Amino acid sequence: MELLPRLDPDEVRRLDRAHVFHSWSAQDLIDPPAIVSARGSRFTDHTGREYLDFASQLVNLNLGHQHPELVEAIAEAASRMTTMAPGFAAETRSQAAAMTADKAPGDLDSVFFTNGGADANEHAIRMARIHTGRHKVLAAYRSYHGGTAAAMALTGEPRRWGSEPSFTGVVHYWGPYAYRSSFHSDGEEQECERALAHLRQTVEVEGPGQVAAIVLETIVGTNGVLVPPDGYLAGVRELCDEYGIVMIADEVMAGFGRAGEWFAVDHWDVTPDLITFAKGVNSGYVPLGGVIVSGAIRETFGQRSYPGGLTYQGHPLACASAVASMRIFERDDIIGRARSLGEDVIGPGLREIAQRHPSVGDVRGLGVMWAVELVRDRETREPLVPFNATGSDAAPMGEVAAACKKSGLWPMVSGNRVHVVPPLTTSPDEVREGLAILDEALSVADAHTA
Amino acid sequence: MELLPRLDPDEVRRLDRAHVFHSWSAQDLIDPPAIVSARGSRFTDHTGREYLDFASQLVNLNLGHQHPELVEAIAEAASRMTTMAPGFAAETRSQAAAMTADKAPGDLDSVFFTNGGADANEHAIRMARIHTGRHKVLAAYRSYHGGTAAAMALTGEPRRWGSEPSFTGVVHYWGPYAYRSSFHSDGEEQECERALAHLRQTVEVEGPGQVAAIVLETIVGTNGVLVPPDGYLAGVRELCDEYGIVMIADEVMAGFGRAGEWFAVDHWDVTPDLITFAKGVNSGYVPLGGVIVSGAIRETFGQRSYPGGLTYQGHPLACASAVASMRIFERDDIIGRARSLGEDVIGPGLREIAQRHPSVGDVRGLGVMWAVELVRDRETREPLVPFNATGSDAAPMGEVAAACKKSGLWPMVSGNRVHVVPPLTTSPDEVREGLAILDEALSVADAHTA
Ligand SMILES: Cc1ncc(COP(=O)(O)O)c(C=O)c1O
Ligand SMILES: Cc1ncc(COP(=O)(O)O)c(C=O)c1O
Repeated sequence: MELLPRLDPDEVRRLDRAHVFHSWSAQDLIDPPAIVSARGSRFTDHTGREYLDFASQLVNLNLGHQHPELVEAIAEAASRMTTMAPGFAAETRSQAAAMTADKAPGDLDSVFFTNGGADANEHAIRMARIHTGRHKVLAAYRSYHGGTAAAMALTGEPRRWGSEPSFTGVVHYWGPYAYRSSFHSDGEEQECERALAHLRQTVEVEGPGQVAAIVLETIVGTNGVLVPPDGYLAGVRELCDEYGIVMIADEVMAGFGRAGEWFAVDHWDVTPDLITFAKGVNSGYVPLGGVIVSGAIRETFGQRSYPGGLTYQGHPLACASAVASMRIFERDDIIGRARSLGEDVIGPGLREIAQRHPSVGDVRGLGVMWAVELVRDRETREPLVPFNATGSDAAPMGEVAAACKKSGLWPMVSGNRVHVVPPLTTSPDEVREGLAILDEALSVADAHTA
Repeated sequence: MELLPRLDPDEVRRLDRAHVFHSWSAQDLIDPPAIVSARGSRFTDHTGREYLDFASQLVNLNLGHQHPELVEAIAEAASRMTTMAPGFAAETRSQAAAMTADKAPGDLDSVFFTNGGADANEHAIRMARIHTGRHKVLAAYRSYHGGTAAAMALTGEPRRWGSEPSFTGVVHYWGPYAYRSSFHSDGEEQECERALAHLRQTVEVEGPGQVAAIVLETIVGTNGVLVPPDGYLAGVRELCDEYGIVMIADEVMAGFGRAGEWFAVDHWDVTPDLITFAKGVNSGYVPLGGVIVSGAIRETFGQRSYPGGLTYQGHPLACASAVASMRIFERDDIIGRARSLGEDVIGPGLREIAQRHPSVGDVRGLGVMWAVELVRDRETREPLVPFNATGSDAAPMGEVAAACKKSGLWPMVSGNRVHVVPPLTTSPDEVREGLAILDEALSVADAHTA
């Protein structure tokens, strides 16, 4: 008896429509293509159309599709020990924790594993609350932290709205975003100062002795690839130190090479108290996430029980894929490749594209994490589509996406932006191929400019 | 370069102590054994001691350790398509959803996949709230629903305390438990009536028009293997229908054969609106859980977007392991085996043991999901250890566990109970071997009786 029978793609689509309940969607308004194969930076749908994956799926495929050695390592690991309860010590769990701790800055030496990014943030907040004995958590507008109750409450964008009210004690503040400053700043340096002043003021009016944690994406991902100005993270670190607040860096998207560093905080040499991760740790080949914990917070739970857990914590198969992935990173200098892909290919390529297209308002990024922000008017910076646009309001971005897909590029579109986030293993030539398609597609956006 | 280097067990333990942050534990007070190999119903630790696994790890290993065909299917599935974003249709995702829907009762035909049990409950509640437009959720005392904020808030036992306050709108009620009735009942039938009257009264005082959902474990798991009396679930179903309340059955532990049925609700022929699952769906070989959704709730999200999701939703490798596992279940009649293991071996065996030991107050269960409740005195039913005991108060149960382990049995101990929850594939002879060890170990408990 065949345990994994094959289906033809039409049947895959039929069963999907009949039985798969899709996230973030109206179930009757979608018609997902079936993906039949994938390799490296490309995947192929049921019509035979091949796409260059400039989204790394959900920005998780740092080593690309079906990396042959990673696939082989998973098979080997499954044959050794597929699963084992979290209460035991297990080979790949110990290895994954030790390697992750080794990559992490400062004394972030312990790892609490989870299944993904949302639950990593859930447990980080719980640790911070108990460590400080405080309740309030400050989180940024323009952020995404995951789909479970606490992670959703942290989230600073419309995806939160459908879950409210639910989780108590989260207060939102504004982070730096020079291109659309909330602080009427005249550039990066002033944006940094003013954003820090705003954060300090928020802490003060909320009560410094009430604030358990400040949570932020080191580089804001889905909400715009907002790279913090130099000095901002150091300023947050100082503020946290001053008031005994736990600094939590969400590196679910930015970590493990995406920003051209093991962790994006390394770019500014800042050490948070907790780092949450998922995605790039193993390219999502097996669900895995976690919290990397500082010595001081680990000490809080030395004699006192930490009240949290999950059945698949430190899952041996997931940890094995993280170990294999980190070793591939080391051997193939994936971090260095990501950095030079950004510096030598994507950055220059996008800046050149910007010159040709009046619809490009801003280009920004680091490593293999870039955004092209589209506007109707470069002067007024009016976004190509309004905030939280749906239906016909969102059409111009839909047209850009459609133009990319038609030419074989799978783009990541978010709000009025196209994000450029291919696998870190994408070759410079493949990146150039994708940028050329994007270049062409942007003429569709230009047609909507003033 | 070897991507998965081997470590000796001492190194595994050293790295665990240095870098793995363990769930539900004080980090300095634990010394986890390293597990070096596992097969079927047995596993071996770093000292070479072999254990018969009467806990199925965390009651998830329904097909036992390292089932060779399931391991092989994972390797095969990884080579085909390890991962693919949830927005696409994918072969194993469609198959796993279709097969799960096929096993599920009534018109529960759509599956929202998650990574585990906690997030399944998170999304079930969100669906219920939006479907009804109401906020309050009723959940039972003596329950465990998971470690993330909403799942934790549902949980009706001390593991919740460390996360409070956090999630709003959960109200706890008491479920049936004839052996320690909250309702002063004289037996199962009266317990059923009174528990339903209590639940109805709770709904009334909370406001029927305010209550989005009633959540319950079909058979309460970790909190005691509390099998509901006949008629209870049907009564809950009626109450929900009367007031338009969503009935959510948490089958994370009881589902997929554990109770001798595909879903435990089948035992009473009751169809909830949402079923949450994880664990047994694929024996936890790859992290996977989900919510099975009724037609009516699916319709609510036909034209309206469901506000929730996760990166690894419907993970192709996880779904493949579920497909292979369900096909093994079908081929090997795992459901039938589970049922007869309970009826012919575990049930009779435990009842016989009970006769020999004054410390055994109650024996109860179904399928391969049993509990032996230990008391100091059969008359007063005083539990062998107090509620939520720690330290020396908990010592008698620690002694029972130690006696089991010394003789090669890995028990599941919870409160004043030993749960008997081996893999469903355990042979009758292995079960008898384990029961004989438990029999002997219970003399340790007898020494604490009046
Ligand atoms: C920055 C960030 N944090 C957390 C998450 C949530 O991770 P997951 O979807 O694995 O729960 C995401 C997912 O996109 C993310 O981008
Ligand atoms: C009944 C029940 N629901 C939910 C959960 C949570 O599942 P997970 O640990 O996969 O999040 C558990 C775990 O033990 C459970 O027993």
